[in-house]
Amino acid sequence: MASDTVKLGDYLFTRLLQLGVTDIFGVPGDYNLRLLDYVVPAGLHWVGNCNELNAAYAADGYGRIKGLSALVTTFGVGELSAANGIAAPDKIDWILQQALIHQRPVYIEIPDDMPDLLVSSSNLKSSKISVPSVLSPPHESKVISRILERLYSAQRPFILVDGESRSLGILDQLDTLVQKTNWPTWTTVFGKGLINESHPNVYGLYAAAFGDKPAQEYFEAADLILTFGPHYSDTNSYFWTTVPKEAVAISFKDDTIQIESDTYRDMSASSVLAQILHALDTTRTIKATGPPKVEITTTDIQASDIIAQNNFYRLVNPIFRENDIVLAETGTASYGGRHCKLPPNSRFFTAVTWLSIGYMLPATLGAALAKRSLNQATGASNQTILITGEGSLQMTAQEISVMIKEKLNILIFIINNEGYTIERVIHGRKQAYNDVPFWRHTQALNYFGADEDQIANSVFTARTCGELQELLKNERVHSGTGLRLVEVAMDREDVQGPLLYLLNKQIAEEKEAAATS
Amino acid sequence: MASDTVKLGDYLFTRLLQLGVTDIFGVPGDYNLRLLDYVVPAGLHWVGNCNELNAAYAADGYGRIKGLSALVTTFGVGELSAANGIAAPDKIDWILQQALIHQRPVYIEIPDDMPDLLVSSSNLKSSKISVPSVLSPPHESKVISRILERLYSAQRPFILVDGESRSLGILDQLDTLVQKTNWPTWTTVFGKGLINESHPNVYGLYAAAFGDKPAQEYFEAADLILTFGPHYSDTNSYFWTTVPKEAVAISFKDDTIQIESDTYRDMSASSVLAQILHALDTTRTIKATGPPKVEITTTDIQASDIIAQNNFYRLVNPIFRENDIVLAETGTASYGGRHCKLPPNSRFFTAVTWLSIGYMLPATLGAALAKRSLNQATGASNQTILITGEGSLQMTAQEISVMIKEKLNILIFIINNEGYTIERVIHGRKQAYNDVPFWRHTQALNYFGADEDQIANSVFTARTCGELQELLKNERVHSGTGLRLVEVAMDREDVQGPLLYLLNKQIAEEKEAAATS
Repeated sequence: MASDTVKLGDYLFTRLLQLGVTDIFGVPGDYNLRLLDYVVPAGLHWVGNCNELNAAYAADGYGRIKGLSALVTTFGVGELSAANGIAAPDKIDWILQQALIHQRPVYIEIPDDMPDLLVSSSNLKSSKISVPSVLSPPHESKVISRILERLYSAQRPFILVDGESRSLGILDQLDTLVQKTNWPTWTTVFGKGLINESHPNVYGLYAAAFGDKPAQEYFEAADLILTFGPHYSDTNSYFWTTVPKEAVAISFKDDTIQIESDTYRDMSASSVLAQILHALDTTRTIKATGPPKVEITTTDIQASDIIAQNNFYRLVNPIFRENDIVLAETGTASYGGRHCKLPPNSRFFTAVTWLSIGYMLPATLGAALAKRSLNQATGASNQTILITGEGSLQMTAQEISVMIKEKLNILIFIINNEGYTIERVIHGRKQAYNDVPFWRHTQALNYFGADEDQIANSVFTARTCGELQELLKNERVHSGTGLRLVEVAMDREDVQGPLLYLLNKQIAEEKEAAATS
Repeated sequence: MASDTVKLGDYLFTRLLQLGVTDIFGVPGDYNLRLLDYVVPAGLHWVGNCNELNAAYAADGYGRIKGLSALVTTFGVGELSAANGIAAPDKIDWILQQALIHQRPVYIEIPDDMPDLLVSSSNLKSSKISVPSVLSPPHESKVISRILERLYSAQRPFILVDGESRSLGILDQLDTLVQKTNWPTWTTVFGKGLINESHPNVYGLYAAAFGDKPAQEYFEAADLILTFGPHYSDTNSYFWTTVPKEAVAISFKDDTIQIESDTYRDMSASSVLAQILHALDTTRTIKATGPPKVEITTTDIQASDIIAQNNFYRLVNPIFRENDIVLAETGTASYGGRHCKLPPNSRFFTAVTWLSIGYMLPATLGAALAKRSLNQATGASNQTILITGEGSLQMTAQEISVMIKEKLNILIFIINNEGYTIERVIHGRKQAYNDVPFWRHTQALNYFGADEDQIANSVFTARTCGELQELLKNERVHSGTGLRLVEVAMDREDVQGPLLYLLNKQIAEEKEAAATS
């Protein structure tokens, strides 16, 4: 083999490794086996998932921690890309760069007879795949001036960090801004975990009418609301009640910045923020005082209380540590988990748009793998903590076996409330179609192949708050290695926040229907 | 409510019930809950699956037994049909009729606010949905004459029943033809189970070079090969080696009949067969003698033999009874299961085209439900028997819990050969990517919620043929109620037939590579 050539399979995986992808998700199949031969020799780790849907979810979770992930499946229904042996390395580089620029999935199809093809290796040595810097548009300085003016004139400022801030690449800048201004700061659901909640001026989640009244009043009366990376799904914005009024809004979006009713295009949020942070004179900004902070307490909880939505998260919250990843599955877990206080450098996942139940368990696998790989460089350790309902868990449960095989430090809380509680509150609260089959969740480690020792010391259950508090003190639970599982029972109609609103609405409609029939 | 109106949801499910669909598969979701309210009141049974993929597979299995099945999922990515309240009943009838005519899936989208809509009920009373009879084309009589001529002149006839015969609706006619001619008859893999293998002239599977030599010689020298419902995928046709030469071929296809090189269009296989059976004078057809029949024996198997592909199916075969459904999952189970002898009125499923592993377990659930519903009319009972590898099982294992919940009489044999053996033989036989996580399959009933009694008497394992023979005598295994599970271990490279050919090819290539390096 000439020294300036490399096999196509090697090229692809070397590029992925250069971009920090150290683990590949997927399922082997007739038409990808020859490509898979290149994974391990390239220095990557193969994670065999139990099915392709689970693999995709796991890769998604991994990408949210590392910024990039890769999934290999076999050829199915689809079109063969007109691949060209000579152009292949450049095409691979181009598509990987697109993934970085747009922070969106890309798709590469490698015909089964091509992984061994010799291609030029010169790109691997000479050119790094990176996001090109964007040229500043002529109107950039005007935008910066307008923003600075508004920062200096604001009397009641409100900072709102939303979830797209991560892919805008501005998290470090936001941390500086939040500390420098010391202004009252909240996150949306999707933005949860992207800003350090230990800063005294960071309040956690802003939930409009479903959160603290003083926060809502402060929001409504704010004369400047800086929103970063807004993601306006109904769930993420509490049906658009967290979207600021135009007159007080400055929003940093994908490639636009909106100031009041003016939209400025071709903007780089990162470039603008850098210049603002450089220019900002904090002697000219107000020392804003936000509403009183509500600390999470557990003093009202009795040991004999039955575990419920209104006490569970507060009891679990103290075991979250710096560097942890906390994932709250769609359903009651999401509505509860988002109100927890997160330690510095932790991350929080919850779905805010498609709400595909079943996503979070494989995403936990993916996130834990990504974090383990990042920890290798820093020497840090962490827990990855999933809170899920048992209905969601049933969708993709088999990935528990991959967590065990991979020896990941994962703690799973299963909320067993006998069915799809989130669906019950939407419609059909007594209907059998919202039931799920009965499973013995405490047998999961046994069924999914954990070794005898692990089974013996890694499965826990609790019905009362006292039992839960006791088991949370167990070192195996809060700081253990490998997979641990805690099953807690809750009432089938135990819900909070918007879900409680929906439940009450349904009960009212039932009463009305009964009265008129 | 006016007596000549009905709610849209009632209309749909009443129509499905009229067509014999008594069970609805699916998963509840925000946008289908209001429709699901109509399932049980319409007299149908709701089968809640663990995820949508599994539900789709289960509905597919159900449809293969009953001819029609239905699956309800929630709205996801997709287009909203421009539904029109007034036209809705006719549209529903039309789409259901298309499903019957084409024996293919159809898709109805019901907006969440429409199930309660009042629509005319007149169709429900006055018009039955049925497949319209096809007008005979002018050339039909000529086709019939040509076929009869060939039937009378044939000296070495061969009947081959392929899988599309079921959707052509000609199975009863084929049974008559096979008995009336008494001609040597085989099935393809896909056709397996569609013709009664107890008839003395029915040989079972025709597998060309991978089957009996005498059968292959008879096929090669045949002067007439009648093929019904051909399905020419590579797997089903052993890479097209079961496709007859044009000069000897008469093939009954979807809406064409092919005689030698002539294709006659717009034909109804059923209409043509009816007229042929009416006209056929068996004093003019040859009393054909086929090759010697090879009976399945087990006399060479010793009790101490380790269970392997070459003894397992022969030992299990005797427990198959009249009316049973046998399903062999893609992989070694398919290649072994297809050689079993099937009792009358039994059915056999195996994949021959897409080979999606994971399909067969939910399909077993669907087929068992369909059969139970059919049994209610006849008073019959049956077993549904799945043979699967453990890699396939991991893909969709959660439907075991639905089998348990539904109290179906299902017997599952799990062949545990430590990974995707079918992939190993294709490529990478020693590669870790063909491994699967270790599971304790004998814990499945425990994890998936069977009651204590059932767990105690329904889980079996065997390593030797003697152990297998002994447990097959157990009434719980061969005639029990509810779910039973038998796990057998086999070697990771234990394969037969075309898979053995691939394995040997790979080993030869490895040797060659080692010699030249």
